[in-house]
Amino acid sequence: MTAAWLADPVRAIDAATVDAARRRQASLTKPPGSLGRLEELAVRLAAMQGSQAPSVERVRVTVFAADHGVAAESVSAYPQSVTVEMVRNFARGGAAISVLARSLGMTLEVVNVGTLTDPGALPGVVDRRIAAGTTNFRHAPAMTDAQLTQALDTGREAVGRARDAGAELWVGGEMGIGNTTCAAALACALLGLRGAALAGPGTGLDAGGVARKAEVIDAALARHRPDPAAPWTVLRDLGGFELAALCGAYVHAAQRGLPVVIDGFIAGVAALAATRLRPGVADWFFYAHRSAEPGHARVLAALGAEPLLDLGMRLGEGSGAALAVALLRQAVALHARMATFAEAGVTEGL
Amino acid sequence: MTAAWLADPVRAIDAATVDAARRRQASLTKPPGSLGRLEELAVRLAAMQGSQAPSVERVRVTVFAADHGVAAESVSAYPQSVTVEMVRNFARGGAAISVLARSLGMTLEVVNVGTLTDPGALPGVVDRRIAAGTTNFRHAPAMTDAQLTQALDTGREAVGRARDAGAELWVGGEMGIGNTTCAAALACALLGLRGAALAGPGTGLDAGGVARKAEVIDAALARHRPDPAAPWTVLRDLGGFELAALCGAYVHAAQRGLPVVIDGFIAGVAALAATRLRPGVADWFFYAHRSAEPGHARVLAALGAEPLLDLGMRLGEGSGAALAVALLRQAVALHARMATFAEAGVTEGL
Repeated sequence: MTAAWLADPVRAIDAATVDAARRRQASLTKPPGSLGRLEELAVRLAAMQGSQAPSVERVRVTVFAADHGVAAESVSAYPQSVTVEMVRNFARGGAAISVLARSLGMTLEVVNVGTLTDPGALPGVVDRRIAAGTTNFRHAPAMTDAQLTQALDTGREAVGRARDAGAELWVGGEMGIGNTTCAAALACALLGLRGAALAGPGTGLDAGGVARKAEVIDAALARHRPDPAAPWTVLRDLGGFELAALCGAYVHAAQRGLPVVIDGFIAGVAALAATRLRPGVADWFFYAHRSAEPGHARVLAALGAEPLLDLGMRLGEGSGAALAVALLRQAVALHARMATFAEAGVTEGL
Repeated sequence: MTAAWLADPVRAIDAATVDAARRRQASLTKPPGSLGRLEELAVRLAAMQGSQAPSVERVRVTVFAADHGVAAESVSAYPQSVTVEMVRNFARGGAAISVLARSLGMTLEVVNVGTLTDPGALPGVVDRRIAAGTTNFRHAPAMTDAQLTQALDTGREAVGRARDAGAELWVGGEMGIGNTTCAAALACALLGLRGAALAGPGTGLDAGGVARKAEVIDAALARHRPDPAAPWTVLRDLGGFELAALCGAYVHAAQRGLPVVIDGFIAGVAALAATRLRPGVADWFFYAHRSAEPGHARVLAALGAEPLLDLGMRLGEGSGAALAVALLRQAVALHARMATFAEAGVTEGL
């Protein structure tokens, strides 16, 4: 195991700012608590930014794309070529996250951490291909220690670029045919579950396909005999390059004090792995949505997460997290700009 | 009963546009259904606007404010003076809906349909005071037939002004100390329930306050013996000016073909009354959120509504609906601007 920076401390949240933010919420012209979870969001963002006028206007979305050896086991409704085709679609602005990033004024960076084929230079795509996809983890470790280090470092660098560019909030997304199988295998290993507990339709498998996916995961678990207390080895044996990059990014964001929004099932598994690699990172996480992918519920429960949205989405790319950004922005606007009872001359309640 | 325009037909949704919108959704570069409820939102908005590039950029928020005679029964945690104080707060831009309207680029109009005192001329506030609050419906009808007609007409006019100003979507909000009692009484009458089924803490009553509220509602129901099949009489006897204005606005929006977003508990009860006054109007409704006010669940069930958000909000003013607008905007952006499989050269799934 390397990537020594994983052991760096996580930035602490300032308790005094939390208290001040709670007092400010109580002073605003509304019945106490009536903005529901928006109040908690504003208090957390105020504390993270050390300001009663927190801002999440400057948002960086990074989408990590990679291929998976396990796709050879027919675990997806789409051929593996779609990963690189979607990288081109991101670059041309036609994918869901491309549209959402433009619509919400967020900067989008795509990082190719290992597609099967090389798409060549593309605008807005950073080339960090580690290999032409991972190894099929049914039969061998998905990657080497050196490759895992490289993937984690790639995530760390992406967060560093975001922070250096002034991002106030970071959203991670992913694209990779086969990556719900990879995420389910990882989560099974970390949570001590069998494949059937977390295998789901992903991009659109039928019941037979889901059963095959569970068998592939069980075969991989039997092959690697993962130890939940050894997250590094679990990530190396069963992970994906984009999942590991997300994981590294989440850890580094917490070390830099950059709030992150966790998207759906795959991002959730990367977040779970991040909490195992570096406890305490979840203080910097917001959970965007409950995915339609059935395994997500177990992952959220393991994280103690109650996501903001439940819209039946299951696309990935950071798309659910993008929607949550729209809510976070309103939460901080209300916190910073509403009048207090005193300012407005409104009588307080009982 | 008057307000003859209530009988005018509701604009029909174009079935051919629905089919075309579904085909477009299926052609976009994502697994079918993976955008979850955003797909249904986009399809409905496309059909409502007769366009595959629907737009909800131009949004009008109208907040109706009024006082309630039933406030004399100590059913709120706030004194009645707060209604007019909040009208001033809306006008000065310090209320939650003022902040949300600015933040989301929506125009805000406040219509005073009957505060206890006259705040005088205020910027952004339309003076349509019907009376200095309704009559206490525990002992007498809340309003006269002429006053109900005036309130419904006021809502109709507000939607007309919104449409004439180019609004593509309309959001109704409300403010009025005592109006959760009024809304609960109305919904009890329309749904054949006792007060305890729908009385809740509102702005912040304790258990004793909630019990008193339920008793007041039961006393009013015993006094008026409402017939659920006579929504006009129910609104007159147990309604509020702002609730009736919302109700008229919802009916007229459906007649004009203007989509509306229904906010929380009080707006939901007005929407329920609207469906009773003019069946078919709900084709034009989007339900924003599930309120923390416990009675909302029964009202949503009666409407067959599954709201978009569940954030524990219970403020009113249209605040939950404002958040939902942010989601609707992303839904239509995705529908109009994502690339198709053919355009992007992405391989389709199985």
